[in-house]
Amino acid sequence: MRNPGLIERYREFMPVSDKTCIVSLCEGSTPMVPAYKLSAAIHPRLEIWLKYEGLNPTGSFKDRGMTMAITKAVEDGFKAVMCASTGNTSASAAAYAARAGIRCAVLIPEGKIAMGKLSQAMIHGAKVVQIRGNFDDALKLVRDVCERHPIALVNSVNPYRIEGQKSGAFEILDDFEGEAPDFQSMPVGNAGNITAYWKGYKEYLAAGRSRSLPIMLGFQAAGSAPIVLGHAIDNPQTFATAIRIGNPASWKQAEAARDESGGVIGMVTDHQIKEAYKLLAATEGIFCEPASAASVAGLQKLSDNGYFNDKTPRVGSKLRVVCILTGHGLKDPDNAIKAAEAPMTVDAEEGAILDAIGLCETVAV
Amino acid sequence: MRNPGLIERYREFMPVSDKTCIVSLCEGSTPMVPAYKLSAAIHPRLEIWLKYEGLNPTGSFKDRGMTMAITKAVEDGFKAVMCASTGNTSASAAAYAARAGIRCAVLIPEGKIAMGKLSQAMIHGAKVVQIRGNFDDALKLVRDVCERHPIALVNSVNPYRIEGQKSGAFEILDDFEGEAPDFQSMPVGNAGNITAYWKGYKEYLAAGRSRSLPIMLGFQAAGSAPIVLGHAIDNPQTFATAIRIGNPASWKQAEAARDESGGVIGMVTDHQIKEAYKLLAATEGIFCEPASAASVAGLQKLSDNGYFNDKTPRVGSKLRVVCILTGHGLKDPDNAIKAAEAPMTVDAEEGAILDAIGLCETVAV
Repeated sequence: MRNPGLIERYREFMPVSDKTCIVSLCEGSTPMVPAYKLSAAIHPRLEIWLKYEGLNPTGSFKDRGMTMAITKAVEDGFKAVMCASTGNTSASAAAYAARAGIRCAVLIPEGKIAMGKLSQAMIHGAKVVQIRGNFDDALKLVRDVCERHPIALVNSVNPYRIEGQKSGAFEILDDFEGEAPDFQSMPVGNAGNITAYWKGYKEYLAAGRSRSLPIMLGFQAAGSAPIVLGHAIDNPQTFATAIRIGNPASWKQAEAARDESGGVIGMVTDHQIKEAYKLLAATEGIFCEPASAASVAGLQKLSDNGYFNDKTPRVGSKLRVVCILTGHGLKDPDNAIKAAEAPMTVDAEEGAILDAIGLCETVAV
Repeated sequence: MRNPGLIERYREFMPVSDKTCIVSLCEGSTPMVPAYKLSAAIHPRLEIWLKYEGLNPTGSFKDRGMTMAITKAVEDGFKAVMCASTGNTSASAAAYAARAGIRCAVLIPEGKIAMGKLSQAMIHGAKVVQIRGNFDDALKLVRDVCERHPIALVNSVNPYRIEGQKSGAFEILDDFEGEAPDFQSMPVGNAGNITAYWKGYKEYLAAGRSRSLPIMLGFQAAGSAPIVLGHAIDNPQTFATAIRIGNPASWKQAEAARDESGGVIGMVTDHQIKEAYKLLAATEGIFCEPASAASVAGLQKLSDNGYFNDKTPRVGSKLRVVCILTGHGLKDPDNAIKAAEAPMTVDAEEGAILDAIGLCETVAV
């Protein structure tokens, strides 16, 4: 099989033995899509690649950590798992628990979950409980429950999640034949993903499988930017629900990734995120969820501030940047419909169609 | 790059030259997920694999044909493309047209399109026109318009679509090292996909890249089964909107695939499709769109009728079957939410959570 799943692909870097029964949905090995038009639009010195994590089985990067977390939960004898989630984690936990044949309960903040994600947790048979509170409240509750009951916690505080997620860095390095990009840009919510990527980059280097490290760039939404502001946010706000987190579990590790790599954790407004989200769909043909677009919005902001002007490419003539697009746009169809032009409805006859599309008078072969 | 897109991967089988500028979103190379529990549930002699086409860039198999169709439209000098669609084709056409920097118009039957798909065509900047009529009306209109104006038709009547889609068969053969599965099962709507797979199987065999051909099994929805019933359906009905087509464009080719392979084109009820859809999500962790589940529902029906009892595996001890899961479940979140148990909403305190999940008393490590 071309894609046997990431634990098999990177088995030597994963905490498994020959006896481990791997729970996989053939996640990982996601494409790196070159973004020529986006590069030109943001800064002439950039060569941007999009790591399209939305093409994981449940439509987000969370599957990388979940294959590992559920594999270990089963190995450790658990018959049930639980998580708090803004949506993507619950979708992934529900799918892998179903695959493993164990039970799953997910706690989500009421009314703040994108519709696609909610539909996933439900159809995979998880017990879905909406709580009257935010993500941070939900996480605290889940931690308490799992401490006192024989239920495995599969939030990103579960260390196996990070182990699986670090495979994203391995894949980027393999795609670039061992040379790290000059920069990696990504959204920062609970901060587990930036932690995992940085770990992956360092492990591959230490193992002699790569020759360099990237500078790590992370972006929070302005209404939900605890790391940038230096304090937890009680009532985080952003339309990018996947990064609507006021007190990140991996806060310190994210700062370490930033500082060790000489990078930046910055913030972008919802307006900037929305513009990047629309730009990706309209010019590159890539539909990601709003949070994912923070990686591109952040690049635009840094570029506008002159950040790239004095930087030197490690290899080649351009500054190579990989943006991690963490989730598929289909996770959140409502936001797409709100952001776009509404469809017209017309009678099924040629004149009406020609009027509606307004194409014919302007095109010429 | 591990996945450069299917035209690059199978260039020698594709109608491109060294000068062709390829329009790709790194489609194809989708996973083959083993389905142990499903196999056991349907028939002890089956070894079922799920070709998860929902992990193409726009979430459906349509991207395979669209990379080829848009590549050729651009090569032929077109500045605009058009299609009629039950949703997946429009999403794909819109994405690849955006990628190519050309314009796109899509005609969809009013009110019969799953929400995810509609959001895609819109966010990728296509002109979306809902017509008061069904898919067949929309297709006729699009054919008329494209005949009279310099707009490339990218429906599956476009021969390049079939060329791209045949790559699915190549991938299956490569994953099984040149040995075709005993059976391939798939949904049949407009019938372009079964046509394309069969073409792919035959071409690989003729090129010496494989050693055998599968028996082709195709399934229509009972309310929308023109090939099974032997006549066009004026007002096709099924909740599996992607195969809600009354007069398939590739009708004859589908019959040829069936007859040449010694296969079956059958029909399954909406109830059978829904059961298979839920089973895939709840037991295998795979969320597909309703139409995709027709491939599994069809296997169940054949199995119930004793179809597999007298069949002999070509290789090994089990009858190997590949089910083509044509689209991701996120395409149609409404149907998932309708099919599943509704979430509960409770206060953010431990007692309420424990009551709601009902897990703790029943699990033991």
